[in-house]
Amino acid sequence: MNDSCIFCKLVAGNIPSTKVYEDAEILAFMDIGPIVKGHALVIPKQHVERITDIPVGMLARVMNIVQQIVAAQMNGLKADGVNIVQANGEAAGQVVPHLHFHVIPRFATDGHHWNWAAKKYDNMEEMSRTAQAIRNGLKQT
Amino acid sequence: MNDSCIFCKLVAGNIPSTKVYEDAEILAFMDIGPIVKGHALVIPKQHVERITDIPVGMLARVMNIVQQIVAAQMNGLKADGVNIVQANGEAAGQVVPHLHFHVIPRFATDGHHWNWAAKKYDNMEEMSRTAQAIRNGLKQT
Repeated sequence: MNDSCIFCKLVAGNIPSTKVYEDAEILAFMDIGPIVKGHALVIPKQHVERITDIPVGMLARVMNIVQQIVAAQMNGLKADGVNIVQANGEAAGQVVPHLHFHVIPRFATDGHHWNWAAKKYDNMEEMSRTAQAIRNGLKQT
Repeated sequence: MNDSCIFCKLVAGNIPSTKVYEDAEILAFMDIGPIVKGHALVIPKQHVERITDIPVGMLARVMNIVQQIVAAQMNGLKADGVNIVQANGEAAGQVVPHLHFHVIPRFATDGHHWNWAAKKYDNMEEMSRTAQAIRNGLKQT
């Protein structure tokens, strides 16, 4: 537990939350500022900040619950679709530094639009060079 | 393989792609319309449409590679952060009906902003009722 982390306090029950799922390792609860009503968060109880910080077996457990929450929103809310969003780092929009997956039910009529502003590479060479940099980064992991 | 699926064709090598990772079950390649340059997609080679369609063990494998691509973008591109985004269903913005995770490097200066328009529940009772509907949906999964 990280004493300054709001999600750790929530796991400990020191801050109230509206839970949708809980087991010994995972908690899923309602986001109080939903992008679309029904928006839930799935977190490991263990305090880790980024997806790169979580042991791969625990990530698998978290994703198993994410998968179940997606199905539950489809079944229980009659959602037409579901978005999963996860942010690592302030530059990515991460506000609470405790790994969390947003699971957001979507409806054909919900009126929400992500700002999906696709850009272009200047040329194929730029894309190839960028891919090479990622492959080089993979070797370091 | 789904003969009408562009990602299946890409897995089969019938459509070219710029790969960043490949093994027997998983492929990661560059999105040619990047939200931020370096934007990659991670897919299972097996054709499944939604996160609810993939066996949990295969989802674990996909997420293990997602985790490694995040680290590779931090290391190789010197990204300040990374977003993971996944869409299930047309209402969620899914364009290609083959499960894919967007892995998007973020930079403090990249100028991209998601439309993170948080809403509010009318009252606590509405949030509780919505959570109950999700819990009911969970029981059906």
